[in-house]
Amino acid sequence: METAIFDATLDQLTSGGFARLTMEGVAQAARTGKAALYRRWASKVELVIDALDSTLPRPSDTPDLGSAREELLYLVESFAAVVHSRSGGAMHALMAELDHEQAALFKDFMAQRVIEPTKGVILDILRRGAERGDVRPGAVTSMVADLAPAMLLYRVKICGGQVGPEFATELVDEVMVPLMRN
Amino acid sequence: METAIFDATLDQLTSGGFARLTMEGVAQAARTGKAALYRRWASKVELVIDALDSTLPRPSDTPDLGSAREELLYLVESFAAVVHSRSGGAMHALMAELDHEQAALFKDFMAQRVIEPTKGVILDILRRGAERGDVRPGAVTSMVADLAPAMLLYRVKICGGQVGPEFATELVDEVMVPLMRN
Repeated sequence: METAIFDATLDQLTSGGFARLTMEGVAQAARTGKAALYRRWASKVELVIDALDSTLPRPSDTPDLGSAREELLYLVESFAAVVHSRSGGAMHALMAELDHEQAALFKDFMAQRVIEPTKGVILDILRRGAERGDVRPGAVTSMVADLAPAMLLYRVKICGGQVGPEFATELVDEVMVPLMRN
Repeated sequence: METAIFDATLDQLTSGGFARLTMEGVAQAARTGKAALYRRWASKVELVIDALDSTLPRPSDTPDLGSAREELLYLVESFAAVVHSRSGGAMHALMAELDHEQAALFKDFMAQRVIEPTKGVILDILRRGAERGDVRPGAVTSMVADLAPAMLLYRVKICGGQVGPEFATELVDEVMVPLMRN
């Protein structure tokens, strides 16, 4: 049931945007009652945040793959995939139409749920690489850890919304690998 | 007179935002008449774009300084300075309150006036460095050229709006220099 509700929420967000999304519409599409929805989510803002939270990948799931290159590739690919996923489309529709106050709310969610944990995971990958010996210790910095998320957001938001399948490989092999090597 | 009009426009933008900016208010602050303003600018959108255009640094002004590191430092410092400048404050106030359609208009302006020429200048710096010998030829790529603008925007828009005086040096010495070296 929860899956059906989250699916309906993301569908409505993608097709009609945040303004036209209603608790009633989501309940209907998910074949449940409006009252059931309100028992769990006080407002559509909370519902949308939970729906996004349930589908966005968790950067803490990045396994130890034996090389910093492989681990970064895995991480960047999973985030690039989000851009073209159901939750990525919903996020895009959402951010495009929000006013300043609403946008600040979702930006906080994104910062805490996506940006900060991603930076933490990248720093872990860099540290593990420095111990293993495939990352130059001088490359274990906050600045280097910000590169991948910064480039992904830049390509999506500034350069027009698409990142191709080659994005992750290019970013890792043209930027991260030369930067990390001893 | 033009300088006074542009100053008044950026001041009103920074203090009251785009919605409260009026041609009349700008004319008064610049000690001229509303009719004089309308003879040159059909709307406040055009006035604001011209005011920003007049104060934003032109990336084509980056001189040949004999080393890619010095040239990148010069470029990034001039852009980091914009963030804390009068036009940077005005841009920030502007983007925070615009609706989707208005924002798209200013985003196009920023893309054509700032983003694309900056990328061109960085590619020139990288190419010149490759010829000179202080840049690895494999580092002359679109991906590498996007790093500095991506990081600047990321720090400003995602990480809360401030870039310290150490930003340019850190970015160039922790990221660009190790990436460019042979």
